[in-house]
Amino acid sequence: MDKDSADLLVQLVRSQRTAALGTLRQGAPLVSMVLYLPGTDCATFHLHVSRLAWHTQDMLSEARVSLSIAATDDGLRNPQTLERVSVRGEAKALSNDSPEHAPLKAAWLARYPESAIQFELADFQFFHIAVRDARFVAGFGRIHNVSAQDLAGLCLHGSN
Amino acid sequence: MDKDSADLLVQLVRSQRTAALGTLRQGAPLVSMVLYLPGTDCATFHLHVSRLAWHTQDMLSEARVSLSIAATDDGLRNPQTLERVSVRGEAKALSNDSPEHAPLKAAWLARYPESAIQFELADFQFFHIAVRDARFVAGFGRIHNVSAQDLAGLCLHGSN
Repeated sequence: MDKDSADLLVQLVRSQRTAALGTLRQGAPLVSMVLYLPGTDCATFHLHVSRLAWHTQDMLSEARVSLSIAATDDGLRNPQTLERVSVRGEAKALSNDSPEHAPLKAAWLARYPESAIQFELADFQFFHIAVRDARFVAGFGRIHNVSAQDLAGLCLHGSN
Repeated sequence: MDKDSADLLVQLVRSQRTAALGTLRQGAPLVSMVLYLPGTDCATFHLHVSRLAWHTQDMLSEARVSLSIAATDDGLRNPQTLERVSVRGEAKALSNDSPEHAPLKAAWLARYPESAIQFELADFQFFHIAVRDARFVAGFGRIHNVSAQDLAGLCLHGSN
């Protein structure tokens, strides 16, 4: 992937706040909106979700998920040229007692200060998504397949 | 569903230009961005996609899909309160020779005038998505399950 595309990908993942999460529900896809926290190495994402939500129940029974993050549609650009990335990976629930919880909570609240209330609710917990691969569309016909290893390198060493 | 929520749903579906499409790929979910055309009755959506795209190949081998349409994140609102709808349904390819093609093409081009070039390419075709059900989140904790029948009624008779 050329440097311009790599920079666009890092910027996309870091700037957006919402993603579309695809889970398996009774053998069929279900897509729902989630907030996400990108890892420092971009091959990891974290979600903070309620066990009452369908997508959470789905991830508990089937780890394979997909996340799509797309540039904001300002209504002016040709929407076909919006940058977007589709990630595929495996989701794993993290216990609220795990050592990762406190630093994730701090990072989550720095990104989503309005979400404080959810840390008071017993049904919310973090999920870790380990990226298997990604497909980045940097514009019409500009498609890049990206491995988890490449993604990790991008975000650690990227220029953004 | 209360009238305010119904109006929000109709407005959301009509105003957005991009959706996240969930397909099944090798038994796992794949989510990718697509443009969509809502039907006049909101229980039908159409996509115009390339057979070279993964999601198209997926829909040809497994009809069950999901579409998520979310309000634009302006970066100011609490993103957890963004309206979004998750639709589940069945996708069916429409031949470019079918009688539906010409009216769909006209409606697509009225909505996406930049897409004219795609009608010159042999690998693009319409897919019809028949909605089975939908789950509408009108805000934090305001969740409505909506049947295809209710969706159809909403959009035909909705106030927007």
